[in-house]
Amino acid sequence: MTKDIKIAIIGVGGVGKAFISQLASYIQRNQSTLSISVVYIARSSTALISKDYSPLPLTAFVPEKLDAAGVPPLSVPDLIKFLKDCGSEAILIDNTSSIELASQYPEFLKSGIHIATPNKKGFSSEESLWNDIFAAAGNSGGSGGYVFHESTVGAGLPVISTIKDLIDTGDEVTKIEGVFSGTLSYLFNQFAPAGGNEAPRAFSEVVKVAKDAGYTEPDPRDDLNGMDVARKLTILARLSGLSIASPTSFPVQSLIPKPLESASSAQEFMTNLPNYDADMGQLAEEAKKEGKVIRFVGSLDVASKSLKVGLEKLDASHPIAALKGSDNIVAFYTKRYGDRALVVQGAGAGGDLTAMGVLADVIKIIARIK
Amino acid sequence: MTKDIKIAIIGVGGVGKAFISQLASYIQRNQSTLSISVVYIARSSTALISKDYSPLPLTAFVPEKLDAAGVPPLSVPDLIKFLKDCGSEAILIDNTSSIELASQYPEFLKSGIHIATPNKKGFSSEESLWNDIFAAAGNSGGSGGYVFHESTVGAGLPVISTIKDLIDTGDEVTKIEGVFSGTLSYLFNQFAPAGGNEAPRAFSEVVKVAKDAGYTEPDPRDDLNGMDVARKLTILARLSGLSIASPTSFPVQSLIPKPLESASSAQEFMTNLPNYDADMGQLAEEAKKEGKVIRFVGSLDVASKSLKVGLEKLDASHPIAALKGSDNIVAFYTKRYGDRALVVQGAGAGGDLTAMGVLADVIKIIARIK
Repeated sequence: MTKDIKIAIIGVGGVGKAFISQLASYIQRNQSTLSISVVYIARSSTALISKDYSPLPLTAFVPEKLDAAGVPPLSVPDLIKFLKDCGSEAILIDNTSSIELASQYPEFLKSGIHIATPNKKGFSSEESLWNDIFAAAGNSGGSGGYVFHESTVGAGLPVISTIKDLIDTGDEVTKIEGVFSGTLSYLFNQFAPAGGNEAPRAFSEVVKVAKDAGYTEPDPRDDLNGMDVARKLTILARLSGLSIASPTSFPVQSLIPKPLESASSAQEFMTNLPNYDADMGQLAEEAKKEGKVIRFVGSLDVASKSLKVGLEKLDASHPIAALKGSDNIVAFYTKRYGDRALVVQGAGAGGDLTAMGVLADVIKIIARIK
Repeated sequence: MTKDIKIAIIGVGGVGKAFISQLASYIQRNQSTLSISVVYIARSSTALISKDYSPLPLTAFVPEKLDAAGVPPLSVPDLIKFLKDCGSEAILIDNTSSIELASQYPEFLKSGIHIATPNKKGFSSEESLWNDIFAAAGNSGGSGGYVFHESTVGAGLPVISTIKDLIDTGDEVTKIEGVFSGTLSYLFNQFAPAGGNEAPRAFSEVVKVAKDAGYTEPDPRDDLNGMDVARKLTILARLSGLSIASPTSFPVQSLIPKPLESASSAQEFMTNLPNYDADMGQLAEEAKKEGKVIRFVGSLDVASKSLKVGLEKLDASHPIAALKGSDNIVAFYTKRYGDRALVVQGAGAGGDLTAMGVLADVIKIIARIK
């Protein structure tokens, strides 16, 4: 008895490529019980479409294949029709960060198509989209496809699944705090290491090294504006039962110096960032005099319905201060766990680790498919 | 469309009572989509049986009800027949620590009955039992019922589910280390706190306080012999792909002084334990001189196929040394995560937190039921 499953993949960047590679191995390992065919692979401009639903070859897949043999991607209605007509269960993998695609999740779900995605946009934008997604989804009382999004927070770390288990079993989240950005974790662990006695480095220098190593977005302002953290906190808050209008409906501290918000390019931004090193240096020095370090923290408090994203001064002995590398940390405080948090910690970024979370979601969907 | 599910519960101790209370709330919250009936509640001597499969009342359940209205429990074959004949999907909840019941899991599974349990015995005893369970289980390639056992390690903490997601997605565990006993965590966090400068307390005194507070087993030797940790490590090693003959097939350090192993009662043991305080005190002092603390650690290394359970000296800055209260910590080192571990930390014992893990497993089984 083999289960027959068709998969459509959109997005072939770092996460998309890693996902396709992991999926190919998974299909190989499970071919005796599962018949999985990837029937559609697309990026914004081109697509590979298997019109007869035979499996597209995944081994040694490179995105360039899309350019060579690709045709224009299907429109969302056409893709939904294509998947609905496949004669078996279908899963959409959204490995993009597109709000346009995410805003169509309810349509996919209503058509019985399942979704696994690391794309935060569907779950952290306007509340109406969140409501529409979970009204339709089969794993939240709806009659549509299942939707899983573990990698929207902390990549493959068990964050979303943990909070869901807590809530589903009747526990109540009281507070969550943590470091939710691998990039900002790295920047501050380098800039202001706990117990560090080296001469302080310029913040702009740390950003430059990280950018050159590919640890930041192409334009580091996309990390420094705090919006990535705000989106993740929005998702955790909504899962905790809070009504959050949007990721801009609560205080989010941006680390971009005001005058540089309008810099016309990443390069112009990087050129001028050293002019503001004194400000960040002073914050770090002040903290150090109190035996503390600065970290970029997200936190939510359910009772007061407050969310906060920004720099905080923390004791050098605080678990967040002890983070290393680009690790994330998430501390869940709940009614059952009381004063001692349930803590999940580890690398929370990177193509392979993000793809792993998506694949784990796919496996959960397959387990639920009749 | 409501799913119809029958549940049998064996064991009404601390975990069993908490589970019944949580399950009653869960049934209430989900009555629009699920029709769950508990049809059997038993402890070793007595049982409540709903012969017509109508739901037994769960609200304000107390184990004394079993004595008042109880009849002798069904034999395992009779229980299997009773559940098979129920006309819908059935789940066995084993809230005991009985090896006799656990050794029958394969029979339950082969009959299509699902199992959720915190009972370590089925997964940490002879390897043949492990193999029989997973050969039969529907979630590991078999054609039988599903089996979930999150609470066998770290109570409700996401430990088993995390390692399963890692392995299922193609990652490879290289090393696991941690503190797996809430009781031993508490004892050493009290006896040798990191950074503590108080006059050292006698180990026997710490054990006594813990015993009086109900933090240890009725006979503390059942904690101090290290077997609980050895069983948990056996489970994690097997999930990591290692072949482990039994929990006594690798080095396990017992903290019971040799001459007291044969003490005829817990009381006799407690009376004589102070005679051995000097030994433990010396170990702690030696560690302290090196800037370290002693902790009771379990670790496994996949490459060398080695497992180890016992006291270790750890730097005061080590995450394990920084544990508080009775917290567990599990650090997973894998191929994908590289040098930086994926860490799960938090309270890993207690009726409510253990029951939570069992209920989360039940919810996962229900999600997979057609």
